Amino acid sequence: MSAYDRLCARFARIATVGEAAAILGWDASVMMPPGGAAARGDQLAVLSGLIHEMTTAPAMAEDLADAEQAMTGDVPAADPWAAANLQLMRHRYLQSVALPSDLVEARSRANSACEAVWRGARLASDFSAACPYLEDVVRLAREASVALGETFAMAPYDALMDGFQRGIRAADVEPVFTEYEAFLEDALPRAEAIQARGGAAKPLPGPFPVGVQEALCQRLSAAAGLDYNRARLDRSAHPFSGGIPTDIRITSRYNENECFQSIMGVMHETGHALYEAGLPTAYARQPVGEASGMAAHESQSLLIELQVCRSDAYLSWLGPRLHAEFGGDAALYTAVNLGRLLRHVERGFIRVEANELTYPAHVILRFRLERALIAGDLMVADLPGAWNEGMQGLLGITPPDDRRGCLQDIHWYDGAFGYFPSYTLGAMAAAQLMAAIRTDVPDVDAAMAEGDLSPLLGWVRREVHGRGNLLGFNDLMRAATGKPLDARAFEAHLTARYLTDPSAR
Amino acid sequence: MSAYDRLCARFARIATVGEAAAILGWDASVMMPPGGAAARGDQLAVLSGLIHEMTTAPAMAEDLADAEQAMTGDVPAADPWAAANLQLMRHRYLQSVALPSDLVEARSRANSACEAVWRGARLASDFSAACPYLEDVVRLAREASVALGETFAMAPYDALMDGFQRGIRAADVEPVFTEYEAFLEDALPRAEAIQARGGAAKPLPGPFPVGVQEALCQRLSAAAGLDYNRARLDRSAHPFSGGIPTDIRITSRYNENECFQSIMGVMHETGHALYEAGLPTAYARQPVGEASGMAAHESQSLLIELQVCRSDAYLSWLGPRLHAEFGGDAALYTAVNLGRLLRHVERGFIRVEANELTYPAHVILRFRLERALIAGDLMVADLPGAWNEGMQGLLGITPPDDRRGCLQDIHWYDGAFGYFPSYTLGAMAAAQLMAAIRTDVPDVDAAMAEGDLSPLLGWVRREVHGRGNLLGFNDLMRAATGKPLDARAFEAHLTARYLTDPSAR
Repeated sequence: MSAYDRLCARFARIATVGEAAAILGWDASVMMPPGGAAARGDQLAVLSGLIHEMTTAPAMAEDLADAEQAMTGDVPAADPWAAANLQLMRHRYLQSVALPSDLVEARSRANSACEAVWRGARLASDFSAACPYLEDVVRLAREASVALGETFAMAPYDALMDGFQRGIRAADVEPVFTEYEAFLEDALPRAEAIQARGGAAKPLPGPFPVGVQEALCQRLSAAAGLDYNRARLDRSAHPFSGGIPTDIRITSRYNENECFQSIMGVMHETGHALYEAGLPTAYARQPVGEASGMAAHESQSLLIELQVCRSDAYLSWLGPRLHAEFGGDAALYTAVNLGRLLRHVERGFIRVEANELTYPAHVILRFRLERALIAGDLMVADLPGAWNEGMQGLLGITPPDDRRGCLQDIHWYDGAFGYFPSYTLGAMAAAQLMAAIRTDVPDVDAAMAEGDLSPLLGWVRREVHGRGNLLGFNDLMRAATGKPLDARAFEAHLTARYLTDPSAR
Repeated sequence: MSAYDRLCARFARIATVGEAAAILGWDASVMMPPGGAAARGDQLAVLSGLIHEMTTAPAMAEDLADAEQAMTGDVPAADPWAAANLQLMRHRYLQSVALPSDLVEARSRANSACEAVWRGARLASDFSAACPYLEDVVRLAREASVALGETFAMAPYDALMDGFQRGIRAADVEPVFTEYEAFLEDALPRAEAIQARGGAAKPLPGPFPVGVQEALCQRLSAAAGLDYNRARLDRSAHPFSGGIPTDIRITSRYNENECFQSIMGVMHETGHALYEAGLPTAYARQPVGEASGMAAHESQSLLIELQVCRSDAYLSWLGPRLHAEFGGDAALYTAVNLGRLLRHVERGFIRVEANELTYPAHVILRFRLERALIAGDLMVADLPGAWNEGMQGLLGITPPDDRRGCLQDIHWYDGAFGYFPSYTLGAMAAAQLMAAIRTDVPDVDAAMAEGDLSPLLGWVRREVHGRGNLLGFNDLMRAATGKPLDARAFEAHLTARYLTDPSAR
């Protein structure tokens, strides 16, 4: 057995323990009675400790060195998948050894303590309660970012981003975001004016019985291509997509007075799930067989939710199906009215409620602030002021309190820095992918208008899902669309959807 | 940190991985879509491999030796819990190192292959199809039994029994079973005659809507003392009790035409669950903090199902509750009619359908045959003949085919030898415990007639659950009831329930 083969076996075993943790994580959110929480925390901690031990075992370092030497002598014949896999193995190994275990433990404790305090502080809109805890969290995240940065010869913030999405750095993101900021300054008032000239959205009457919504969501998800012999749809307080490629677990929540939160939420998670289901089985449980990162993942969920499900074509198919389930006046279920309901533009304080046009502003704000926090250019105590000033600059509104400002998201209070850009990189990538699909698959919109996503799915399976983790984010975009990420496809999409007078359509 | 403290930490970590496997096992039976089966098999195999590695780590042997030496010098002051825990750790370690890993793997493969063939062979009632596979299974089980027997200085069959229930050997079981056989020879025809003289059971009309049954089962289970903040009740094809003490998972199946299978099944699993929930938390995740074995476990499930739930006292309380749910003629819900329905005696071929009076005959047959198989005194090819002859001797009936004979149970075909006695040891222990409870807690029947199991539960928590794995089976019986297991309390219970003319009651 070659050193590389031994590494594949080691990483398969590590991935299998990770699969166990993934199912246990799902169970904790969906099934577990409250009494199980303490023991579940221990179970997940022990599994993650075992993964760390297995990843940093002395024999791992030896096998890596031997395999790298063998592969270097083999350059012309090298299988690019094996080469990428070996590089990712080395990367995974270095990530695990880069951080001293006392720092990992201190971060874990500080993050848990801060997150717990944040829950109360957010409710009370009291940043001062969370501030000292967040200071610890930021200090330890900076320490970790420096250690990772040294290991990977990256700037500290880039090293944090790299933990969520490799292959794109802050220096790549900054110009894309700057261009979008300029676009938005012009586009937002125009979109608002066009919206004001159009007719008001008429709400669907409801009620929307929860059982009917749930069954409909599963049918729509299955119709989009998710195989429910290898997936489940359940309920949880915070919807997510989990599990493993052959046993995917997506969740949603339901509200009897409203049906789109669940439908669009389930279709979003279905996009994530289709990515996992479409990963290359030949590299299952290998680093190169995983998804390419969080921005790539978000591109797949938003391709389905924003590009497909909020399009006129899909809504023209969805409308009659909703009418059959929920009844009332058929005129409410036209693509025009559903579009008004589902694409309403508004300047709001809350990221998760934002429309796709303003959503990037929320992310740009966070990207700049977290970069400054990690660089030490912004003190935690100054965060509320910097937040409100940034919000005023980007959207022209100032949060009336920190609950609707810098306390709204869990991410920083749980120690996650470098994650936020993924949301907007994903939204932009989804538009760029959709433009490429329209070029390569001319009948894709006609099929969507029949509720048929198979032409689209065939393309993304080939161009994205099937590539696994072979390429970093920008290389994946190049391979799939011919160019690295840029904001223009997204802007063209928004221009067509929000800046074209409906009367002209 | 002392060697013993290090061992406690090691075993806690091992137990925590076992907890993860327990939840994953539940998920596989209750939640998992079919596509997840292959990966789940890998996940459980890797976790059990990790448990084996952690148990047999070289440092484990060193710590065991050091801790044993330290404790030997400390005899008078020794904490009996710590002493028992250390002995159980040594036992666990020896069990893990006793079997060469190629034998463990060969058994696992042979058992899986045989079980798969058995499913078809049972349906076709074709023992010859399963016979060569069972020969492999028996050969490898014998090999394992010899290796374990040498390690523990036990007879090979005793070493297999010991894996399911320590503290009782075949030589202890044989006289108890022989006495019961003699009792049954006289009791069975008398019980049949008495039953024939009594009135026929009148079936409840039904239907029994599945959702109503499920909600009722959970209420009855909670009323018996199971805390559903630390437990769940779900559906599965084969009911079982799983999970961990703070997160217990019990399952049932439901049939719209019948309600007692689910009610008695859930109460049986509730007995198992109450045992787990009542284990000593001070020794959680330690070998001494676990349940004392399968016979002890079955004593707890059968205490609830047979001793409590099929008693006149409990049925007099249950009847009106069933009537309120399912309606019909109130006269059908008297304790007398419910007793006739739930305590019907019949000479049948199938163990799992047997009444408590004849059930031990099914177990005695299997105990004798499996002992002979492991001893090499019975060839696998001769099993059908030996089975049918034994059945004729014990119950006076001969199975018309092997489906209703030696092919009916999965146990042997899955490699489990030494397990069967646990069922009847548990049934006998339950009667012995109930007799002791009636002595110590005089108002226990009056409380049961009010649906109140708390006096009974208080007693078993103190005398059984709270003792964890401190004592082996017969020592536990001595501590709780003043004597080792004997068949007489069970016979007295059956005499009162089946051999007393109803007109005389």
